[in-house]
Amino acid sequence: MASMIFTDPSSAAAVHRLPFTRFSNGLNTLRRFVGPLHVSSPTPTLPRTLSVHSPRSSRFVTASMAIESSAKVIDGKAVAKQMREEISAEVSKLKETIGVVPGLAVILVGDRKDSATYVRNKKKACESVGINSFEVHLPDDASEEEVLKFISDFNGDPSVHGILVQLPLPSHMNEQNILNAVTIEKDVDGFHPLNIGRLAMRGREPLFVPCTPKGCIELLHRYGVDIKGKRAVVIGRSNIVGMPAALLLQREDATVTIVHSRTKNPEEITRQADIIISAVGQPNMVRGSWIKPGAVIVDVGINPVEDASSPRGYRLVGDVCYDEACKVAAAVTPVPGGVGPMTIAMLLSNTLSSAKRAFDIKIGALRIRVKASDEAGSRLAL
Amino acid sequence: MASMIFTDPSSAAAVHRLPFTRFSNGLNTLRRFVGPLHVSSPTPTLPRTLSVHSPRSSRFVTASMAIESSAKVIDGKAVAKQMREEISAEVSKLKETIGVVPGLAVILVGDRKDSATYVRNKKKACESVGINSFEVHLPDDASEEEVLKFISDFNGDPSVHGILVQLPLPSHMNEQNILNAVTIEKDVDGFHPLNIGRLAMRGREPLFVPCTPKGCIELLHRYGVDIKGKRAVVIGRSNIVGMPAALLLQREDATVTIVHSRTKNPEEITRQADIIISAVGQPNMVRGSWIKPGAVIVDVGINPVEDASSPRGYRLVGDVCYDEACKVAAAVTPVPGGVGPMTIAMLLSNTLSSAKRAFDIKIGALRIRVKASDEAGSRLAL
Repeated sequence: MASMIFTDPSSAAAVHRLPFTRFSNGLNTLRRFVGPLHVSSPTPTLPRTLSVHSPRSSRFVTASMAIESSAKVIDGKAVAKQMREEISAEVSKLKETIGVVPGLAVILVGDRKDSATYVRNKKKACESVGINSFEVHLPDDASEEEVLKFISDFNGDPSVHGILVQLPLPSHMNEQNILNAVTIEKDVDGFHPLNIGRLAMRGREPLFVPCTPKGCIELLHRYGVDIKGKRAVVIGRSNIVGMPAALLLQREDATVTIVHSRTKNPEEITRQADIIISAVGQPNMVRGSWIKPGAVIVDVGINPVEDASSPRGYRLVGDVCYDEACKVAAAVTPVPGGVGPMTIAMLLSNTLSSAKRAFDIKIGALRIRVKASDEAGSRLAL
Repeated sequence: MASMIFTDPSSAAAVHRLPFTRFSNGLNTLRRFVGPLHVSSPTPTLPRTLSVHSPRSSRFVTASMAIESSAKVIDGKAVAKQMREEISAEVSKLKETIGVVPGLAVILVGDRKDSATYVRNKKKACESVGINSFEVHLPDDASEEEVLKFISDFNGDPSVHGILVQLPLPSHMNEQNILNAVTIEKDVDGFHPLNIGRLAMRGREPLFVPCTPKGCIELLHRYGVDIKGKRAVVIGRSNIVGMPAALLLQREDATVTIVHSRTKNPEEITRQADIIISAVGQPNMVRGSWIKPGAVIVDVGINPVEDASSPRGYRLVGDVCYDEACKVAAAVTPVPGGVGPMTIAMLLSNTLSSAKRAFDIKIGALRIRVKASDEAGSRLAL
């Protein structure tokens, strides 16, 4: 099982780094369209009786019928598409009205094929919404200083609003040093401790929220899932998904428990949850018996499992046993086609926000200068 | 009830700022010795059969017997005393060996009597362990710029290792601006978002941990309470106690749930906990029925309630109904004499750590300079 591993350790589906050691195995970020087209349900809590409609995927409908599904499918692919259209419209408007084009810089070191694929995907995604992308590709034996020099240049470049360093870096580099060098104003991954601290604190606002957990919450919002006052369980406590997802749910007034590798009775605790976010990297770990009837499930795991019937020899499954979940839950994200597509959409969203903020700050500074100049003029006139 | 309110909104027992709006009322930081002398129990989980020994407080023993207590009393006063002795010894050693004396600066603005008392207590505590204290007292109509100037001076002063701004500040000042001006290296309160972010993240270390939650965990450690794998419930989600306490428990591998004002069934959730930390500010809110038999309870609340039989007309109680808790729990902190005395002890501990770190950094820089000079010498010799 899981003989092939495809991972994107930077913003796009970095769930493979989850320290859920007792359960963890390989993960995959390949994504294929599976889910049918659904958009936002206005109901605060999704009723279990909602049926699965699929005008575009008869294969999926058949599968759903076979497992007597009553759960609504949370279609991340469709939501991500809708988000990209919204971002694209905003980018055009920004360009037309004030001449600002958001820019994302990606630094890739070495020749890992998977990393090259992720960088290419990000570049394509930027192009599709009109965001400029800047790519630096350094050889595997590049020095840490070279990488730091590029980061420093991008930090100072006003046409760059977000900087991503594609991970993993070659072993001779200090990852923390390099990531810390990215200015917090361009930390579109949202992993800077200052951003995480602000996320944890009431009354503070982070500049950026990490993309994958932000995508999970966005899915809940767009499907009208009420979070306030609900019991939520986050399975996995990684810095990049589990922990920030828990902080986001907490900010929205859920009562949150993080279940992790040292939790003695994960099944019992998870069964109390109205909302489950699983980010572990263990295929089918969350069984039907873990799920409270009517719960809403967001499955972040993307795990390859061997499948001789597939042309590739494997298929992708989530942390949650999808067939069983469909029988118990009110709504569930499929894998692939659930959280996966949301991550890059959120990266684009963070880059757009950064460009808007940079412009607002520039305008603010300009206004202060104009005001100061006016005041100086008034004084002169007196 | 609770007609008198005594609060210290800076590091010492700032629980009154907890945003537990549905339950919240006044709080009190006056502390009196109640608990008997106990130090560290080697048992991983405290057995319920442990009796309360009190060689020094017959009043307390009588009270305990009257309520048929089976809970061990976690004596914060005694632990704090022991900690101060340890700190005092370390301060002496530091002075003797390398001539460094830790220094704490406190800035007080205005004439609030309670604030003056808290500042005086901190000064006294510093003196008692040999830490230098520096106090700035500004009038109520001082400007924000004046306060910022003092902070800037203390930031640059190598004899100051910790800076505290006594809260509340006069209303014409921006509290966040002022607190943010304290350099992170001297943020002995540990409330800087960068510290909180590092506390939340696995693999990162905060420079300082907020004093009150650090005191709670220290009590659990010194009483040999096993945290790893235990269910923990933190009641209250303030930036200064609840949230960082939850992060600390999480770092020690507990399975943590934060219960707050929007939680629908706090009693039921709390009853699942092996460890309860309550930081709400609601007298006697946590009843016996909320407590799992054998749980360990850390009560951060210090609430004044009217009491005609007391010479002061009030007495202090915790968030937890102590009499009922004693019948169910394995161990419980009294109020006063539990968490309260730990806060200032932790402030002293943070100041000492800061002084040691500053010295280490200085020595490290010196070593680098010496090494560079050696290398330069070697090059010259070649």
